[in-house]
Amino acid sequence: MMTWGESHGEALGVVVDGCPAGIELSAADIQHELDRRRPGMSEIASERREADEVLILSGVFEGKTLGSPISMLVWNRDVDSTPYEEIKHIARPGQADYSYQMKYGLRDYRGGGRASGRETLARVAAGAIARKVLAYHNIEIVGHVVEIGGIRARARARARARAKRVELKEIKRNAEMNAVRCADPEAAVQMQELIKRAKREGDSVGGIVEVIATGVPPGLGEPVFDKLDAELAKALMSIGAVKGVEIGVGFGAARMRGSEMNDEFYIDTEDGRIRTRTNNAGGILGGISTGEPVICRVAVKPTPSIAKPQRSVDMARMEEVELRIRGRHDPCICPRIVPVAEAMVALVLIDYMMIMRGGRLETMRQK
Amino acid sequence: MMTWGESHGEALGVVVDGCPAGIELSAADIQHELDRRRPGMSEIASERREADEVLILSGVFEGKTLGSPISMLVWNRDVDSTPYEEIKHIARPGQADYSYQMKYGLRDYRGGGRASGRETLARVAAGAIARKVLAYHNIEIVGHVVEIGGIRARARARARARAKRVELKEIKRNAEMNAVRCADPEAAVQMQELIKRAKREGDSVGGIVEVIATGVPPGLGEPVFDKLDAELAKALMSIGAVKGVEIGVGFGAARMRGSEMNDEFYIDTEDGRIRTRTNNAGGILGGISTGEPVICRVAVKPTPSIAKPQRSVDMARMEEVELRIRGRHDPCICPRIVPVAEAMVALVLIDYMMIMRGGRLETMRQK
Amino acid sequence: MMTWGESHGEALGVVVDGCPAGIELSAADIQHELDRRRPGMSEIASERREADEVLILSGVFEGKTLGSPISMLVWNRDVDSTPYEEIKHIARPGQADYSYQMKYGLRDYRGGGRASGRETLARVAAGAIARKVLAYHNIEIVGHVVEIGGIRARARARARARAKRVELKEIKRNAEMNAVRCADPEAAVQMQELIKRAKREGDSVGGIVEVIATGVPPGLGEPVFDKLDAELAKALMSIGAVKGVEIGVGFGAARMRGSEMNDEFYIDTEDGRIRTRTNNAGGILGGISTGEPVICRVAVKPTPSIAKPQRSVDMARMEEVELRIRGRHDPCICPRIVPVAEAMVALVLIDYMMIMRGGRLETMRQK
Amino acid sequence: MMTWGESHGEALGVVVDGCPAGIELSAADIQHELDRRRPGMSEIASERREADEVLILSGVFEGKTLGSPISMLVWNRDVDSTPYEEIKHIARPGQADYSYQMKYGLRDYRGGGRASGRETLARVAAGAIARKVLAYHNIEIVGHVVEIGGIRARARARARARAKRVELKEIKRNAEMNAVRCADPEAAVQMQELIKRAKREGDSVGGIVEVIATGVPPGLGEPVFDKLDAELAKALMSIGAVKGVEIGVGFGAARMRGSEMNDEFYIDTEDGRIRTRTNNAGGILGGISTGEPVICRVAVKPTPSIAKPQRSVDMARMEEVELRIRGRHDPCICPRIVPVAEAMVALVLIDYMMIMRGGRLETMRQK
Repeated sequence: MMTWGESHGEALGVVVDGCPAGIELSAADIQHELDRRRPGMSEIASERREADEVLILSGVFEGKTLGSPISMLVWNRDVDSTPYEEIKHIARPGQADYSYQMKYGLRDYRGGGRASGRETLARVAAGAIARKVLAYHNIEIVGHVVEIGGIRARARARARARAKRVELKEIKRNAEMNAVRCADPEAAVQMQELIKRAKREGDSVGGIVEVIATGVPPGLGEPVFDKLDAELAKALMSIGAVKGVEIGVGFGAARMRGSEMNDEFYIDTEDGRIRTRTNNAGGILGGISTGEPVICRVAVKPTPSIAKPQRSVDMARMEEVELRIRGRHDPCICPRIVPVAEAMVALVLIDYMMIMRGGRLETMRQK
Repeated sequence: MMTWGESHGEALGVVVDGCPAGIELSAADIQHELDRRRPGMSEIASERREADEVLILSGVFEGKTLGSPISMLVWNRDVDSTPYEEIKHIARPGQADYSYQMKYGLRDYRGGGRASGRETLARVAAGAIARKVLAYHNIEIVGHVVEIGGIRARARARARARAKRVELKEIKRNAEMNAVRCADPEAAVQMQELIKRAKREGDSVGGIVEVIATGVPPGLGEPVFDKLDAELAKALMSIGAVKGVEIGVGFGAARMRGSEMNDEFYIDTEDGRIRTRTNNAGGILGGISTGEPVICRVAVKPTPSIAKPQRSVDMARMEEVELRIRGRHDPCICPRIVPVAEAMVALVLIDYMMIMRGGRLETMRQK
Repeated sequence: MMTWGESHGEALGVVVDGCPAGIELSAADIQHELDRRRPGMSEIASERREADEVLILSGVFEGKTLGSPISMLVWNRDVDSTPYEEIKHIARPGQADYSYQMKYGLRDYRGGGRASGRETLARVAAGAIARKVLAYHNIEIVGHVVEIGGIRARARARARARAKRVELKEIKRNAEMNAVRCADPEAAVQMQELIKRAKREGDSVGGIVEVIATGVPPGLGEPVFDKLDAELAKALMSIGAVKGVEIGVGFGAARMRGSEMNDEFYIDTEDGRIRTRTNNAGGILGGISTGEPVICRVAVKPTPSIAKPQRSVDMARMEEVELRIRGRHDPCICPRIVPVAEAMVALVLIDYMMIMRGGRLETMRQK
Repeated sequence: MMTWGESHGEALGVVVDGCPAGIELSAADIQHELDRRRPGMSEIASERREADEVLILSGVFEGKTLGSPISMLVWNRDVDSTPYEEIKHIARPGQADYSYQMKYGLRDYRGGGRASGRETLARVAAGAIARKVLAYHNIEIVGHVVEIGGIRARARARARARAKRVELKEIKRNAEMNAVRCADPEAAVQMQELIKRAKREGDSVGGIVEVIATGVPPGLGEPVFDKLDAELAKALMSIGAVKGVEIGVGFGAARMRGSEMNDEFYIDTEDGRIRTRTNNAGGILGGISTGEPVICRVAVKPTPSIAKPQRSVDMARMEEVELRIRGRHDPCICPRIVPVAEAMVALVLIDYMMIMRGGRLETMRQK
């Protein structure tokens, strides 16, 4: 997968290579996920309204994938670069202006350029294809918001130590019913209030997004460097606003005893398979999937673009200035991170489903 | 870099490719770091005593690196596989027995085989070389324990939002003075007590390790997938016991306002460089280093091998059993994770120092 | 670099990642090379006439590269898929129909689909960028036809054992003056006659294309698997019609004595540099460039699409059939392979210019 | 796969990652192939006599592969570095001394250091494992010498356009019966005479080695850059002495008409499969295997180390000198290239057998 495009450039896109041939795929399949990523709610979200209509330019023939690279493109419309002109030399705090300028010596300052969150639509488009293929293998991925600005969803609305599929359906259904994508309806209301308040104050809030993958077969992951959890960590940390990644109980493990943390094995009487009674490990042991649900969470920082005045530096004139950011910005990016994080998990899993290195001989690709 | 070897096999080793030519390198340079990884303290650590003497078999000529692959090897001695014979078909909770068995269909059950923590000595050996090269660029890496079993080092003994080099030296010196590698001497005493207690109870504890890299030049990191924080997350999560990774304030960002989180820029009057007053970002913006110290932390789970009886499954006979693990095991792995995490950070940074893609033209490799 | 697109699909394109920032780049720079690849001559070439107008959709801002991925696109127009409808189940001899069908289970049969030579325009577009960057380093790449259907250009019009820059300019100028891109004007006339004759007979001819790169600094190439000659061989062999690759004297080496083959070193009195008197090695020793011109040649097979009737198999009905191919096809692809082969050489060289692994410490990327 | 080691260093070795678990493997399996690579014949080969005994240090447990990296090592014994001391600053013509010195700034001059042909034993060791796995899939690889110093094996002793398995067995048996590994006994005698004569004259000769792989399933190869022929070209060109690679008729294609070159398809009445009557393509169309035998040939240059005096340059004193090379050197390296080329073909094929990208959905890895 390769993504390309700047926020206010001609277009954004992604090329997906390695998709199996023969998968039914239409622009509508992609569009559905893109629409979930789009800002929607007037009060708690950015007001930029883009159709974000995806075009499939290659790799699909008569409704089916060809096995050759799938190129997808979204034109950039509804672009107003005016607010960026006046601050084009200023390093916005919490943004990539300064580091890009240092690395590249120049940058497209309009709308964040390449470092814009808008880049994630290419990830979501690619992830939509991955999810279609994973669905052939009964792997399902559900993301939702579990915490915003300190308000936490109740345990029932989080992936618990031993996630069951039925609960996941409930989490998914509940999370998609509100603007913050939180499966706990009461917490969702509070979160929305908090976001509105932050917006009124010219400020923003962060939170935590959880992603659960069910149906993952045991055996995915390539020790010792390309472990499943390692690749998930990389994929999720590569999302712009993410500052932390954890698997299973994650940082909670630091405060647990071994006797609490260890998930005991038992034999499931229904299907005779070995399972664990708890799932503190988040479905991964030794970097390889166990067959239990894979659970990960990411820490999302508060949107750096805030209306409040901030101190910064004009990089061209090399002098300190006061910065006031105009334009349309989400006061909380968490709900929109949900489909992006889901996409990244899907992209990691699909990669392991298609590469077999060092596994059992009998699972080697048949001629 | 490629590592190889099973815990109770003939030997373990690593091949490091891409090291610049002309670096002075001796076995002693490597040995120093390996010795830091070794279990040392009778009461709070595993009792396996290995010389772990490293041999350099290639890539060094007349005391200098050749630019060709450096092969290093440590023979496995002091190996007693007896305790593993009787439990060889049992999936130890929290270990990779089950997932390896599912993936490969067979495994070397002795001492954890390939999934053993002993594999990390190869990482430390490779990291020692990386650190030598980084030192040429004035990049220094310091790791230490900031939390064990809920006991936290005081703020002074943690990398603070704006880490200064002088504090780092202090952290390093203090951390290496006690068995738990905690820079807060009082917390260190409490941590050791806690570990001893856990050991007496046949249990184990987890914790948090922090790694700080100073002197990192701005501009390292390759958006949008191979960002510096993404590669750090992958490298650190690939360490066996790690369940979470965070950069800068990490999960703390989820509870912060944008106005708190954003690090304001200013011009340093000493050297005229643009810097940030705080370092909540952990030295990385948009996936690219800013020049501020790079700060990351990992959540380390409690050692899964505990003396307490546990329920599990015999995978050969497919029946549930009670498991009692014998043998020598660290009740807390955190102090030994310190040099491993340092090594992984070093290996990520050295990689970026040597690859230039998409940066300024003038920094392209000179002929 | 990632290319995408089917011959008769919506569009073809390429995404180029890793281009240094700050390079002046316009669509016109790319277009010039694309135009060289286009079929031009009524009698000796295919009659498909495409504008092949390239669009740059990202990675360039205010006329300069940003260091972020450059996405380029060419819409497919003037497409007539009718001739392919009637033979869509037939495996055309010498084409990829059968192997694609076996691998993917389906294929876009129109115009060769993904296996079409039209895919090479994406390579040429990417190569045009690489050549711009190489020009900053005084590296120049010249390709030309040295043999068609047994007719060979005279020695003067081939890269000789010790190529001098002045001769290269002459080769380049002469080669671009005729439709077959042969630097020997007399041979060029004969080649054109031969091609016309083959066309009249409903047949096609093959040939040999040579590419020379001058100004390549010593030290490019990464032993032992990613040697410069190895990567050149891969890049050139990946061009559809190529069946052989050779470096320097190539297969001629099989008939030489060591005393003939070895290029003796001497000290150039002009600049005091060590050089070789001959260049049988083609500028590469031990997989690393020596500073002498890099010389490679590719064997180009005769165009498989010929008007003459051929025996083949209908893959749907599984019966043998007689095939008559209609449509517009080059009777000799060699002249159009020239810019493609040049592009592939440029793409290999640029990659080595930007990656430094295992070389001298002092050439490591400056902070 | 990663290889390491200098010719006169401590040892040479290779780490093979990604080998499927459960393959029976012993040192004897590897040793057999290493012995084929060893110099054997007193008159036509180098006189260095090494046991080259391979040790397997990891990745194998109770006689079966574990799926984890297999580390193999051969100690360097019978090493006499004396002849290299006196010429350590001299750039030997046709060798990598100069290019290594330019790239790395220093080198291990003893026995060619990293650039020595001795490095290929690591390739052969890795290839031996690949061949074991390929044998599970009924893929067999046969290499032999088809030309030395202009003397060519008769057509019967070369892979013909339509290679049949029975002929391959004959080629293999005949080739292994003489010191030059030529399947034509009469040509073999002449070749040996020629080599002896060259040796007496202090000179050396080159030749051509052919490798045939049968049983390769259709569908291997990843367009458009990682085509099967492209990867074969890279792998084979990475062998030190190789200056050219061709597939099928190779450079012969340049002199053929399309109507001759195209392999017509037919339906094999025995098994109902689609096959080609001829195999000019060498088993690869569009970069994907067709199921016909894969045929490739490499041009091997004459050994550069010759006894005859040569002109060269002392790189330390920067003056021209006359060089007389002492020591033990093969006057013709072709017979020893045979197992190396076989190994490289095996390593390419095994890679494709284990990676499935973009192929049919139903061949995706089963859970």
